[in-house]
Amino acid sequence: MSKRIPHRLYLSEEQMPKQWYNLRADMKEQPDPMLNPGTMKPVTEADLYPVFCEKLAKQEMDSSNRYIDIPEEIQDFYKMYRPSPLIRAYNLEKALGTPAKIYYKFEGNNTSGSHKLNSAIAQAYYAKDQGLSGLTTETGAGQWGTALAEACAYYNLPLTVYMVKCSYEQKPFRKTVMKTFNAEIFPSPSTTTNAGNAILEKNPDTTGSLGCAISEAIEKAVTTPGYRYVLGSVLNQVLLHQSIIGLESKLAMEILDEYPDIIVGCAGGGSNLGGLIAPFMQDKLLGKADPRIIAVEPASCPSFTRGKYAYDFCDTGKVTPLARMYTLGSGFIPSANHAGGLRYHGMSPILSKLYHDGYMEAVAVEQTKVFEAAVFFAKQETILPAPESAHAIRTAIDEALKCKVSGESKTILFGLTGTGYFDMTAYNAYLEKTMNDYIPSDEDLQKGFDGLPSIPGIQ
Amino acid sequence: MSKRIPHRLYLSEEQMPKQWYNLRADMKEQPDPMLNPGTMKPVTEADLYPVFCEKLAKQEMDSSNRYIDIPEEIQDFYKMYRPSPLIRAYNLEKALGTPAKIYYKFEGNNTSGSHKLNSAIAQAYYAKDQGLSGLTTETGAGQWGTALAEACAYYNLPLTVYMVKCSYEQKPFRKTVMKTFNAEIFPSPSTTTNAGNAILEKNPDTTGSLGCAISEAIEKAVTTPGYRYVLGSVLNQVLLHQSIIGLESKLAMEILDEYPDIIVGCAGGGSNLGGLIAPFMQDKLLGKADPRIIAVEPASCPSFTRGKYAYDFCDTGKVTPLARMYTLGSGFIPSANHAGGLRYHGMSPILSKLYHDGYMEAVAVEQTKVFEAAVFFAKQETILPAPESAHAIRTAIDEALKCKVSGESKTILFGLTGTGYFDMTAYNAYLEKTMNDYIPSDEDLQKGFDGLPSIPGIQ
Repeated sequence: MSKRIPHRLYLSEEQMPKQWYNLRADMKEQPDPMLNPGTMKPVTEADLYPVFCEKLAKQEMDSSNRYIDIPEEIQDFYKMYRPSPLIRAYNLEKALGTPAKIYYKFEGNNTSGSHKLNSAIAQAYYAKDQGLSGLTTETGAGQWGTALAEACAYYNLPLTVYMVKCSYEQKPFRKTVMKTFNAEIFPSPSTTTNAGNAILEKNPDTTGSLGCAISEAIEKAVTTPGYRYVLGSVLNQVLLHQSIIGLESKLAMEILDEYPDIIVGCAGGGSNLGGLIAPFMQDKLLGKADPRIIAVEPASCPSFTRGKYAYDFCDTGKVTPLARMYTLGSGFIPSANHAGGLRYHGMSPILSKLYHDGYMEAVAVEQTKVFEAAVFFAKQETILPAPESAHAIRTAIDEALKCKVSGESKTILFGLTGTGYFDMTAYNAYLEKTMNDYIPSDEDLQKGFDGLPSIPGIQ
Repeated sequence: MSKRIPHRLYLSEEQMPKQWYNLRADMKEQPDPMLNPGTMKPVTEADLYPVFCEKLAKQEMDSSNRYIDIPEEIQDFYKMYRPSPLIRAYNLEKALGTPAKIYYKFEGNNTSGSHKLNSAIAQAYYAKDQGLSGLTTETGAGQWGTALAEACAYYNLPLTVYMVKCSYEQKPFRKTVMKTFNAEIFPSPSTTTNAGNAILEKNPDTTGSLGCAISEAIEKAVTTPGYRYVLGSVLNQVLLHQSIIGLESKLAMEILDEYPDIIVGCAGGGSNLGGLIAPFMQDKLLGKADPRIIAVEPASCPSFTRGKYAYDFCDTGKVTPLARMYTLGSGFIPSANHAGGLRYHGMSPILSKLYHDGYMEAVAVEQTKVFEAAVFFAKQETILPAPESAHAIRTAIDEALKCKVSGESKTILFGLTGTGYFDMTAYNAYLEKTMNDYIPSDEDLQKGFDGLPSIPGIQ
């Protein structure tokens, strides 16, 4: 075991990125534009103002500025919990007996427990800067809601969270954390919005979905004076903010004189994956390097591997613009026995385009295999991963085991997005062997595809 | 706000301590020796072998070696989650409007969620090194049990944990984490030991206590071939291992050209406090510096501030040696509405002696005040503290506010021992205003004192 490379590398405060990286500026072909579902015309920046605050709407539409300055206040906040460590998984390598070198970027060392805080604080800052009265959002497993509550509490900004009902009921402690940070929380679908009431009328027993909670949060935002809506994934602006993960990782690897052959990230809406891979994808787009980039998604919600690349709504209530992305249909609801996040029906349009154009690969993994990897990893590396993050661990381990067979000493980098402290019910189900794998049938998926919008001349 | 000092300082791997510091080597007067309760003679190292593994028994008795080498394997494990950051609480200072400079050493960035791992990995290592078959221990709030489970899983060492019954029932997720790391867990008192059965016979409805769980864990260890018992606090060996907290803190402050005027640590059995203050207390003992050192304990379990400095058993079943320490009596059970740890009836004999000799101060704080500080801190510094740690936060804030009145720019260092992820029930009680403060009456305490052993010629 070489000792030259430390177990953990922390950049110094001076080395921390002062700009986010906007991947779109280097894409040869841009993602297809979002469409206004009323006119079927591309959405303009001004179209977004009722929903997003202005500077975020601008970031959402910006495909030309390669680097965007991180406001000093956000830099200061980042310094409270960043840089996150780049960790060499010496013990995992040893336990696997692999010649591969495994690195991971650990984003769980903040109270929100995940990378979500990177974008939450940016979005809360811009909202405060615009003088808004409050924000609304949705949360599924709770990581995003927790991060945003934390960010809003820092700026004394009221926050209303619509939490997917099955999570709301199964994760009372997530609620308490958000309440500690002053947030108001409703289970979604709720009776506080027309969208929620409509969904409840059709399906009173629904356990909810992210798409449904998004509809409620948007409605609440546009009907409350001075409020705007924020989202923790999928959007271009979120990938921009999350680029700090990749920028720090790349700089840390440069300091170690390393470059990844394989980069692995879990993928739900794409916030972590997009952030982690951003500067490496830049190298790939510019022909400077050619790492393999692998998105890992749950077999129970396989938008990349089994979804369609099509225009779709971002929510169940069909109030959002249409985005072209890999999607299972906005009515798709993952099985309730799927643990953790990564349950969104769609995928970041940027990542969808890159995947469609062959710049990255995707694999779908079953959740018992994911938890097997999580427990193995926890015992070696003493970090209990979030189920979401464990998808990346599963694939990183699989790739390291391939190296064991081939004898290749590849360098693998994966994103460890967060901790599993709030996911102990799922861990318990795994340990008690009551967890099972659910893979939707082709017929199940077809129902979601049948709901895709028809767009004359386009799809 | 001076920006010269970074928000977070991480030592490099090379700067990490390679030796623990043994505070006893610099104490002018030693703590009184432990006594064998059968003979009332001082305990010898060999007396401890049936209970502790040999190298730990040696460390327990060693008052002459100032520095003890940290075995390389333990150093390697430390590198997986250490160094822990020394954090400048810029936002807390700003929110308080204090001229004081506040630093904290954050030990929560590992899966066990607390500083307990520092000693757990050492104790598991020595047990493995001696070829033992397994370990037993007790845990109250669950931090120690989690840390030890993690350490034992790393060495494939079986572990049996006796968990104080009220915690066992209130914190199912702590159980799951420990099970994830292979531990076997019983609620204490249990029917698996004579000690447990005897306690249950007298008091079938007891919610358990640390003292009672210790009795069970020791009995299980001495009656199982190849097993030994380990403890996460109170003992000299534990303070030795935890000295890494203070050594890192002091070196980091030196790098920043700082020295604390006030050092604040929460105190249950003394593991964190003893570790944090160790090298600063050395300066004090050697006349090199004179910082104020403040132990903070719960008003509901006030061993320093209202206990007696007397020989007492370390457990309820009265099977341990007698130690001279500040104690509320081994039969004392804190009110069940006391949240979190810090519920031990006694206190580290080393710290007891130093307190008795006037080298440190102690304050007792009520839990609603503690949670008020915890929530305030979380909003400013984005770390959700464990209730235990929040005792230190309370007093650090109080001292910073005194500086605001006096206009003094004192440097305050406190120990943030862990995170509150597993304490959300208590946070919820605080937020819902169902938490109340319990302060034992003099009569309550007298009952505990009445149970102190009588030792002819000594007490």
